[in-house]
Amino acid sequence: MASVKEMDTYAKLWMKEAGSRLRASFNTKLDIEMKTNPNDLVTNMDKGIEKFFCDKIGEVFPDHRIFGEEGMGNDIKDLKGTVWIIDPIDGTLNFIHQQRDFAISLGVYVDGIGKIGMVYDVVSDELYHVIKGQGAYMDDQRLPTLPSASVNRSIVSINASWVTENRRIDPSLLAPLVRDARGTRSYGSAALELAFVAAGRIDAYITMRLMPWDFAGGVLLVEEVGGEVSNIKGDKLNFLEGDSLFVSKPGLHKEVFDKYLSGDTGL
Amino acid sequence: MASVKEMDTYAKLWMKEAGSRLRASFNTKLDIEMKTNPNDLVTNMDKGIEKFFCDKIGEVFPDHRIFGEEGMGNDIKDLKGTVWIIDPIDGTLNFIHQQRDFAISLGVYVDGIGKIGMVYDVVSDELYHVIKGQGAYMDDQRLPTLPSASVNRSIVSINASWVTENRRIDPSLLAPLVRDARGTRSYGSAALELAFVAAGRIDAYITMRLMPWDFAGGVLLVEEVGGEVSNIKGDKLNFLEGDSLFVSKPGLHKEVFDKYLSGDTGL
Repeated sequence: MASVKEMDTYAKLWMKEAGSRLRASFNTKLDIEMKTNPNDLVTNMDKGIEKFFCDKIGEVFPDHRIFGEEGMGNDIKDLKGTVWIIDPIDGTLNFIHQQRDFAISLGVYVDGIGKIGMVYDVVSDELYHVIKGQGAYMDDQRLPTLPSASVNRSIVSINASWVTENRRIDPSLLAPLVRDARGTRSYGSAALELAFVAAGRIDAYITMRLMPWDFAGGVLLVEEVGGEVSNIKGDKLNFLEGDSLFVSKPGLHKEVFDKYLSGDTGL
Repeated sequence: MASVKEMDTYAKLWMKEAGSRLRASFNTKLDIEMKTNPNDLVTNMDKGIEKFFCDKIGEVFPDHRIFGEEGMGNDIKDLKGTVWIIDPIDGTLNFIHQQRDFAISLGVYVDGIGKIGMVYDVVSDELYHVIKGQGAYMDDQRLPTLPSASVNRSIVSINASWVTENRRIDPSLLAPLVRDARGTRSYGSAALELAFVAAGRIDAYITMRLMPWDFAGGVLLVEEVGGEVSNIKGDKLNFLEGDSLFVSKPGLHKEVFDKYLSGDTGL
């Protein structure tokens, strides 16, 4: 059986190689296709990078399974054995429009337990990584344990769409949180926003709809530094079908659930 | 009389020097004070950097006036003569919480006409700069003229606070724009968001309350690449008292004013 150390070493190597390919693609013409709607886009690079990971993992760890955004891995119905959960480009809109602020996200889960988490900010060349229980890092710099926080001193990452009419949540529920927080931000990449919470740069991140590959890597970073992780109801995340997500510094979960999401929220 | 070229050369030199001082400050303890409210903060570095610019400008261009966020320059009631409009740290909350995503903003106006605009992303070490009529640049890379855009394919930078209850605008006015846009973002630094519009990374930026030092540098970048600049009513910006701000790629102003801000908006 592959050791975590061995998987970690390969994963880092592949992340860097995939990042080089993505940076090189900036000089070529992207092939962009629509997925579920006109704002849900995929490029030839999303597919190419996922295929790269599938090929590499298949070569070195042939008995591992792969759960990827572009569906080039396995048809995953459970997390038995070793499963690599991969988003080749998290923040595809940023990749297309900005050529920055996107990430490769990777989580390795063994029988459902997170062992390795990585988020690679490709353009900044910053690799956030964790082996469960051995500390979270940005490159070689260890990320300190998160201090506790309160809403009125917090910067919360939340997209404006969740406080306007949408299909996931009554906009009036989170509006008071936006009002009371010190500030709000939105970066357009869940993986990066998770890494930013882990690094202490934002105090919380709330979003109403993600898929497992968006958060499988990043939540391990947040947990490792003592952050709080749940869906918007306060329950454990669904790693098979996706979920809402609320991650924060310690203390913010209780305050937000008590003050803003208590009672009958209809969620 | 100082030539624009001469002012530009000094301004770049001082921006870089000020940036080095800000980066060096990450290793020291910040002295943080409250201004108008608990979320309006100022640090010893905001003041120190503004003083640095005042000293340098006073030395080389003693007859120029300075209009700065921290009030260390002149008491400005008009834009006669040459006025340097400076924000020593635009995005002070980001500076404190994140140690990234803040900028130094500088605009040089002669009898009210913008001549030089600069926004320095200190941590990325990216200097956006323009001499009016001579092209806008990020470092040595010329920023191309902006193509036209439509709302449904646009990424709009707008803070969630403007679509929740606030003192500046009825939240229901901009909510449909958030719904119809391809995506929204928020970075917490007006100067950077202006630079991002100029660089084509975001398609529009809307905010309800800025002061002249927040936008004096950045709007010149946007104008130089053919972007549209006004306040939220479609009028010219007020460079003495501050204003709301709406900058975008060509075409978006008409669409947004026609579809979302037409009629009696109460603005």
